[in-house]
Amino acid sequence: MNKKGLAVLMRSRVRPPANQGRQHFPPSESLPFPNSSMDPSRSDDHQETSSWPSVMLKDVKDWMHASISIPAHRIEPFDSNLEKFSLGYLGLDQEDRKELIFVLARDYDVNRARVRDLMQQYLGLEHPPAMSDRQSSGPEEEGILTAFYRTERNLRDALKPMYSLFFERLNAYPGGLKLLVVLRADLLSSLAKENIPCLRALDSYLKEKLITWLSPASLELHQITWDDSASLLEKIVAYEAVHPIRNLLDLKRRLGVGRRCFGYMHPAIYGEPLIFIEVALLKDVAVSIQDVLWDEPPTPECEASCALFYSITSTQPGLSGINLGKFLIKRVIELLRRDMPHIMTFATLSPIPGFMQWLLSKLASQLKLAKTETEDSSTSSHIGSGSVFRENILLPEEEKMIVNSSVGSAVGKSGLEIMENLLRSTNSEWAKSDCLDVLKHPLLRLCARYLLKERKRGKALDPVANFHLQNGAMIERINWMADQSEKGIQQSAGIMVNYVYRLDHIEEYAQSFINEGCIHASPDLHEYVKDMKDNNSTVIN
Amino acid sequence: MNKKGLAVLMRSRVRPPANQGRQHFPPSESLPFPNSSMDPSRSDDHQETSSWPSVMLKDVKDWMHASISIPAHRIEPFDSNLEKFSLGYLGLDQEDRKELIFVLARDYDVNRARVRDLMQQYLGLEHPPAMSDRQSSGPEEEGILTAFYRTERNLRDALKPMYSLFFERLNAYPGGLKLLVVLRADLLSSLAKENIPCLRALDSYLKEKLITWLSPASLELHQITWDDSASLLEKIVAYEAVHPIRNLLDLKRRLGVGRRCFGYMHPAIYGEPLIFIEVALLKDVAVSIQDVLWDEPPTPECEASCALFYSITSTQPGLSGINLGKFLIKRVIELLRRDMPHIMTFATLSPIPGFMQWLLSKLASQLKLAKTETEDSSTSSHIGSGSVFRENILLPEEEKMIVNSSVGSAVGKSGLEIMENLLRSTNSEWAKSDCLDVLKHPLLRLCARYLLKERKRGKALDPVANFHLQNGAMIERINWMADQSEKGIQQSAGIMVNYVYRLDHIEEYAQSFINEGCIHASPDLHEYVKDMKDNNSTVIN
Repeated sequence: MNKKGLAVLMRSRVRPPANQGRQHFPPSESLPFPNSSMDPSRSDDHQETSSWPSVMLKDVKDWMHASISIPAHRIEPFDSNLEKFSLGYLGLDQEDRKELIFVLARDYDVNRARVRDLMQQYLGLEHPPAMSDRQSSGPEEEGILTAFYRTERNLRDALKPMYSLFFERLNAYPGGLKLLVVLRADLLSSLAKENIPCLRALDSYLKEKLITWLSPASLELHQITWDDSASLLEKIVAYEAVHPIRNLLDLKRRLGVGRRCFGYMHPAIYGEPLIFIEVALLKDVAVSIQDVLWDEPPTPECEASCALFYSITSTQPGLSGINLGKFLIKRVIELLRRDMPHIMTFATLSPIPGFMQWLLSKLASQLKLAKTETEDSSTSSHIGSGSVFRENILLPEEEKMIVNSSVGSAVGKSGLEIMENLLRSTNSEWAKSDCLDVLKHPLLRLCARYLLKERKRGKALDPVANFHLQNGAMIERINWMADQSEKGIQQSAGIMVNYVYRLDHIEEYAQSFINEGCIHASPDLHEYVKDMKDNNSTVIN
Repeated sequence: MNKKGLAVLMRSRVRPPANQGRQHFPPSESLPFPNSSMDPSRSDDHQETSSWPSVMLKDVKDWMHASISIPAHRIEPFDSNLEKFSLGYLGLDQEDRKELIFVLARDYDVNRARVRDLMQQYLGLEHPPAMSDRQSSGPEEEGILTAFYRTERNLRDALKPMYSLFFERLNAYPGGLKLLVVLRADLLSSLAKENIPCLRALDSYLKEKLITWLSPASLELHQITWDDSASLLEKIVAYEAVHPIRNLLDLKRRLGVGRRCFGYMHPAIYGEPLIFIEVALLKDVAVSIQDVLWDEPPTPECEASCALFYSITSTQPGLSGINLGKFLIKRVIELLRRDMPHIMTFATLSPIPGFMQWLLSKLASQLKLAKTETEDSSTSSHIGSGSVFRENILLPEEEKMIVNSSVGSAVGKSGLEIMENLLRSTNSEWAKSDCLDVLKHPLLRLCARYLLKERKRGKALDPVANFHLQNGAMIERINWMADQSEKGIQQSAGIMVNYVYRLDHIEEYAQSFINEGCIHASPDLHEYVKDMKDNNSTVIN
């Protein structure tokens, strides 16, 4: 790549950090995506957009209607209405897109009158004979069966909302699949504000379609290297959300010796991966992200025995809830095993994005509870909202250490209060202060508890933990001050976790987590929570 | 490619000409594919097959059952049952495959009891309020709507046959899409022998799924060149069905200067195109296939003004009835226009595969009619089966020329009889004899009639004509003795046709053919049929 190319590439860093439109991986399936809105890359993909400055909502609606109304036998792959719709949609602002999506959900729904008619017909059919083998059916039985098959087929068609046809057509149209992904991102953003039944139904239908169209077998595993086009590399820089790429040197290292970057490409979504993973080849499982990002010189590849997955980024907010990462990780493991048989360990160095949020809310509720108890010590200990119980967040020795520490009396009365005040201090000053040592043990212990014990509807509460556990990983180790970036301190108290994929146990671990909720963890992790009562979850070491 | 590579490549010609499993393009959509059976390339694709010599039908059934029965949340992309099924299925012989497919169609059908239950539920739901806008719906209406959406979703699921899940899983499994295509080929071959309702329903369902998974937008247009792998080129040699590739030199020329070959590749079907097209770049639209295959030296590309499509081959019998050729032709035209703006004409040189069969049956029925009339001249002229009428197949001057020709009296009494006897002569000797001149005019005229006037259910009777006309081509010219190969003489009396794609009229012509049955043709073609009464079809010049 020449200097001009590099300069062009770097312009992407000058852009505003478009956090809308990006998605930290993995998405929590139960939550609609919060800030989907527009695809950050759309201005690149659809440069024509600028030539549609004054697109009118009414026109786009008309093109949509025309695309849906073409009789099936007249479908052309290069239909001009689909083309106009595609460009027009991208020219609309967020409000107009929402309006259009609402019209699609409401006016192009299931034709319920036709469904009812067909159901009456179906229920009126004579019961089909039980089929035993093909010899036994005479022409009469054949006639009855044929009627069943025909009516079932008609019913299947009738139960498809009219927008189904629109989706099918867009999928066949060049660029249409990408547009559907953008449309779903907009839809999720609408749903986050206005959770109404017809939008939910539209989303559920579109999600199902996208899953079948993005079959893992049709995704191409592409190794992203420094020889790739600037336009592709620019997207990697723009999308990387876990550990932002600081500069060109950083990017080049992530694609160079001792590093791998793989993306899943779909032939209908040109020039950008749907998801990509970054791998470091190391001697040992890393204990801090700074060691991975800035090891100099890198481990010679022939000496590496560990492949460390240190970042996985889903680029399309519109694919929220569609787990492509699972397939990607397995294919990458397979490929690395084949190419580098000396790699024995497949591990991650992962953030724990929900830890601090969980901990602070736990501390707050316990402090509130303690205060109420002190004010009215005669009431029972079960008070407040039904789910909040008084519990010992800190062990007695931890409490003592915190209170006795130099910073102790300055910021609170109890260990809990001191801890909360420290953790809430501006600019996360606690992480640079003297109190780091006294907080280390309680934070690591509580982090282990958060990872091993806290659940939500049977899943691990932490979305990244849930992602790796359902893929068949185990929790190997938690690492103190492993990510000292501002985000790392704020989200995870600087702690990072190594999940390990044990090749002989991936399926077994995945199944026991999914079916029985068993979390496999190392003895070290187990040690942290050994005194906890079991909280209807199972931990195995 | 080195000599060893070439030698390996050429072995494919030594194979038996596996006509089963290949498909002459385009397939007639209304007919089930005649000789589908096995994919000729499967022994290459699935070399593991040989390691499953004694696969038992019962085992394969069990693996199929296990694949269908995995609960949805336990689906793994690399599921071992799917793997065993895939290998096992390919190890079965034709009889066992048929049996397995029958079991799939019969035992994994729609759960009709559940469908009925849900229908009763649905019909019992309170009618939903008409939705006008989102403000008007209160919580009660929302509840009703939610119930509708939920029941409709459940009904959609219940109306899916159980084998639907199996197809979805195979599609997600690496290699599974190809297996589904092989399975459909076997299914079509079963159906050709035993057209029973459950197999028809299975086929219709599978075909619909394949159409959505093989969306044209997900197909990659690949230019096949001499630099491609021997394994890919070997497949081109093996599959080419229109004008068989004689030897290496022939193959190399078809990929060299003045030639193009493009295939549609799907990422989930590795290493072979689903369909490919061969193009010659020429000064003028060719009048004979021999000129195309053996022009020496080829036209310099800068002097070419015509792109001639001289062969289009669909490689997968299991994709019968799924028109990928339409998309392929349009993308190739688009690409050539962009790369070679001096190409002004896009034409084909096509066989007329149904012509001789139609003509011989026409001659036979007329001769029979004439004989009956002679025997009983008092009856009305409308006799025999309702659809057969006495008509003048030959013009008076053609009749006279044939009867007066040197071969005339030797082989029959009337012109019709002489013509029939000549055309049925062993080894198509008529084509090498003196009678060629007297047959030229009537055969060309009748060929024009066949192309312009003969219909079947609104479509052109000739499948190749129907294919190009529905894509938006017009009939430009028919060429005498344009294909003197044995197949050419036997199928089309040596005549070939040039269809022309006029860029400004492709959509218009396609629509008027599909909607109103209009066939666009040149004045020359029109001239041949000017005396015919219009036969409820429209021809426009």
